[in-house]
Amino acid sequence: MMNFPSKVLEKAVEEISGLPGIGKKSATRLALHLLRQSNSQALGLSDALRRLVTDIKYCKECHNFSDAEICEICASEKRNAEQLCVVEDVRDVMAIENTQQYQGKYLVLGGKLSPMEGIGPSQLRIDSLEKRARSGEVKEIIFALSATMEGDTTAYYLYKKLKDLPLQFSTIARGIAVGDELEYADEVSLGRSIRNRMPYNEKM
Amino acid sequence: MMNFPSKVLEKAVEEISGLPGIGKKSATRLALHLLRQSNSQALGLSDALRRLVTDIKYCKECHNFSDAEICEICASEKRNAEQLCVVEDVRDVMAIENTQQYQGKYLVLGGKLSPMEGIGPSQLRIDSLEKRARSGEVKEIIFALSATMEGDTTAYYLYKKLKDLPLQFSTIARGIAVGDELEYADEVSLGRSIRNRMPYNEKM
Repeated sequence: MMNFPSKVLEKAVEEISGLPGIGKKSATRLALHLLRQSNSQALGLSDALRRLVTDIKYCKECHNFSDAEICEICASEKRNAEQLCVVEDVRDVMAIENTQQYQGKYLVLGGKLSPMEGIGPSQLRIDSLEKRARSGEVKEIIFALSATMEGDTTAYYLYKKLKDLPLQFSTIARGIAVGDELEYADEVSLGRSIRNRMPYNEKM
Repeated sequence: MMNFPSKVLEKAVEEISGLPGIGKKSATRLALHLLRQSNSQALGLSDALRRLVTDIKYCKECHNFSDAEICEICASEKRNAEQLCVVEDVRDVMAIENTQQYQGKYLVLGGKLSPMEGIGPSQLRIDSLEKRARSGEVKEIIFALSATMEGDTTAYYLYKKLKDLPLQFSTIARGIAVGDELEYADEVSLGRSIRNRMPYNEKM
């Protein structure tokens, strides 16, 4: 048990150590660092965190984070609306955008099917994907899911659901090692794997 | 360069990555984590950080952080006012308190003499230490400074300044490896080294 000279400090340490991967000792160092700096750093951080939850919105089209009702990518005339890239998470959108190899649009599922973690189809944004797939605008569905059993299962589930629609299906090339999560892949491999995406079929 | 779907998110990531040891990638993970949690976590953290700079005070006696004008240790009747432990930093007070081996009071210098970093006597709270040393209340000065050249230099400087006063001088036992900073020492070694402190003399 730590002895804190101040309840205010103790409370800050407690809150900071609630973050993933930050233990009590690191949290203490961070709090003391903030106390040593100019007040504006701590206040700037405090303000940014408050705004993070009060001001952020979700794009109604793709479910990515957004400052507006419709995110910049969905609203952009420059993006190819015929391509729809299905990802698990917002981080995956950011990872693919960083490669600058993809000009289509996205749909953020919000996870992958995982019986182990009790995540079934109803927890994912599959209705939203279906609506987009049936809109007539989309011509190609690109699965950009984790190269794990759960990612594969999710792609297969979605493919079965949508395969009767007049759509092309593809999946990002397995240039990344099996077992890898997208967000940890380096930009070059990830960029190559989405550029060289392959037609999706049941026997992959 | 990262592409953020939202300026609010980008700003939060920027502020978080201003913390020491937290890169852009970790900051992004932390911000996205906060977005996935209930709002109360981010708001609690935001509030605790704001209060950290608006509500914290420094103890007028020992310069430790405090919620009041005088900290709990300085105000306590149970602490031995005859012993004054001189430390560099607030973290060192916390480290020694954690050992539960010391019942005296503290004085936080606010650093150590370091010509390399341009820290001279005027940047440290030496006036405050002298005032305490001359108060008549204090009988023993305990140096609990880093076991580094700078820590040794600081102890020697203070000893020379105070040695004509009717005081005992001691320094925490070098049970901790030379080159170690106090805050990284394990509790047992640190507790033993303050319990087995040795009389201070010039030839140590």
